[in-house]
Amino acid sequence: MASGRPLERIAKAQAQLDALGADALLVAPSADFRYFTGLPGHVSERLTALVIPREGPATLLVPQLEAPLYAALPNTLQRRTWADGDDPIAALCQVLDAAQARVVAVNDQLWSGFLLQLQEAAPDRRFVRGQPLLRRLRMVKDADELATLREAARRTDVAWEAFCASARLVGQTERALAAQLRAALEAEGLETVAFCIVASGPNAASPHHEPGDRVVQPGDPVIFDFGGTLDGYYSDCTRTVMAGHDAPPEIADAYDAVLEANQAAFAAIRPGVPCEEVDRAARQVLEDRGYGPFFIHRTGHGLGLSGHEDPYLVAGNREPLQPGMVVSDEPGVYLAGRWGIRIEDIVVVTEDGAERLNTTSHELRVLP
Amino acid sequence: MASGRPLERIAKAQAQLDALGADALLVAPSADFRYFTGLPGHVSERLTALVIPREGPATLLVPQLEAPLYAALPNTLQRRTWADGDDPIAALCQVLDAAQARVVAVNDQLWSGFLLQLQEAAPDRRFVRGQPLLRRLRMVKDADELATLREAARRTDVAWEAFCASARLVGQTERALAAQLRAALEAEGLETVAFCIVASGPNAASPHHEPGDRVVQPGDPVIFDFGGTLDGYYSDCTRTVMAGHDAPPEIADAYDAVLEANQAAFAAIRPGVPCEEVDRAARQVLEDRGYGPFFIHRTGHGLGLSGHEDPYLVAGNREPLQPGMVVSDEPGVYLAGRWGIRIEDIVVVTEDGAERLNTTSHELRVLP
Repeated sequence: MASGRPLERIAKAQAQLDALGADALLVAPSADFRYFTGLPGHVSERLTALVIPREGPATLLVPQLEAPLYAALPNTLQRRTWADGDDPIAALCQVLDAAQARVVAVNDQLWSGFLLQLQEAAPDRRFVRGQPLLRRLRMVKDADELATLREAARRTDVAWEAFCASARLVGQTERALAAQLRAALEAEGLETVAFCIVASGPNAASPHHEPGDRVVQPGDPVIFDFGGTLDGYYSDCTRTVMAGHDAPPEIADAYDAVLEANQAAFAAIRPGVPCEEVDRAARQVLEDRGYGPFFIHRTGHGLGLSGHEDPYLVAGNREPLQPGMVVSDEPGVYLAGRWGIRIEDIVVVTEDGAERLNTTSHELRVLP
Repeated sequence: MASGRPLERIAKAQAQLDALGADALLVAPSADFRYFTGLPGHVSERLTALVIPREGPATLLVPQLEAPLYAALPNTLQRRTWADGDDPIAALCQVLDAAQARVVAVNDQLWSGFLLQLQEAAPDRRFVRGQPLLRRLRMVKDADELATLREAARRTDVAWEAFCASARLVGQTERALAAQLRAALEAEGLETVAFCIVASGPNAASPHHEPGDRVVQPGDPVIFDFGGTLDGYYSDCTRTVMAGHDAPPEIADAYDAVLEANQAAFAAIRPGVPCEEVDRAARQVLEDRGYGPFFIHRTGHGLGLSGHEDPYLVAGNREPLQPGMVVSDEPGVYLAGRWGIRIEDIVVVTEDGAERLNTTSHELRVLP
């Protein structure tokens, strides 16, 4: 991250605190923390927090032993450390007092254990969600962010093709296949493999299945849902393939319906369209083809420094899409105890429509 | 986990709610959640929560698409699902209403975003930390937990010996060495490698250094701090080695002091001794030998379903040790910008003393 970026982003947050009715923004290690500092921070029982006041420099409160992790940050960010045995809540209250913060907006991922201690330490101070401000800052990606997301998606696609070129599904466990796909993602230089779902046969009916010891059988549909990070930004792609032989008509028809829903959602994505309309477009296809009850989740989620973030493509979300938003397009059909199908691409909202970042084949592949 | 365990543990929590002045315990996905359910749960923007009332069955509120993950839990645990587009906070409030929960204890890891919505939804309901109850339940391990922790430590020791037998440090990056040690841990069947610090030369002065592109030089001390999980239970071990050749007198003396501190802490561990006394024992050694200012963290932490948990071996913690508690013993010395040394073992408090779970050599090894 460019060294000037943290300060620019902190200034943007400061300009919006007024609209939130808050005097300061408190950010714990999370994607929000990385957005402001360029660093992930360390989520643990030792309190780390960035405090952004309405005016003046922000303060980073960190455990003494972790201070070296932040040495590269610009000096305009004030540092304060606390040592094991000190009271970090008291230290944070002093920082908030100095910021004259009567109303403090906090990011969603701050642990409740810390928030409850802060509320008890200063009953007159009010805490509100910082999410309305943070989502506004992070939802629309700038050119650098888009370039990173594009590159993360490209590497993920290359890894998927490499996996398909060499993988033998039948007779292998989900766990072994996940290890192989993880290795392919790592080989492309993704800094972490954030998730790697391999769900075969009946397990594919569980959208967030954990890869286990089930051995893939000929005729299984197998869902692969995988992603990693590059400079903190996520990739996320899902492909469903057949193991061993062609799909029977029942599965082929459902696959075709899911693909049509994926394409209908993509076609609906353009600036000004409310998020729920994209969900509606995908859902309508599946309802029309008789799969409505089996599409048991929203159509998509935003993607950036978090794997799931605003905006969500879900019924009830009237947020209009804007150029620079990045979302997943991932309809699915799940028949409990039998099988499941999902197809997912990451999509960028452009000035006049949409662009897929994942470009690997949508055809129903058969892998040996 | 034995199928009856969740219900036993839930009953234990119910018996202690009164002492906390709470009507219900709300547990988000975390080590606490795993303690009660045997499952890790899924930490995400989709709310998952276990609600334990004072009496009667507990309720698990989960996103519809993740319901299959909990299929194996006993039926005596009530299930409630919410679908994308529903309001999960309203659903959770209904569960709390049904439990007549005016005072709700929450576990520390629940996201503040959820807590603030709960507080706003029902201003008359009061939320307090569940930690005093949860730490009491989890601090003292039973025989099954100790067996799992022992096996996790044993596998970690085997992996360390395998790494030492084959590793060439000089000329390799920290990142490459971390990958090699991770592979050794995975080869021993640890289900996840939870962390793997490799900190060489001046980087070793940063206790929580992230392995990077620095190439190890002859004469570097290198800290390896590594652990994984087995059935959810952690291992955690630190060894410092010399790369290429013997330590110069300065480093040899500091190593000897850290080892003496590690042994002094171990010698202090027995039932009835306050946690802070163990920290004091290690710190006294390092102070006496002139390294006091360079020991910049507590002596240890508890270990179980979390990598760091109660009890903490830190100044100010008067909690007396009890048989079945499991703690790390990890003094260190850190010279900013120059080098660092840490030695860590996991130790079980026994009926009359203590037992180390990590048994690999404490000698200052030289690796090529």
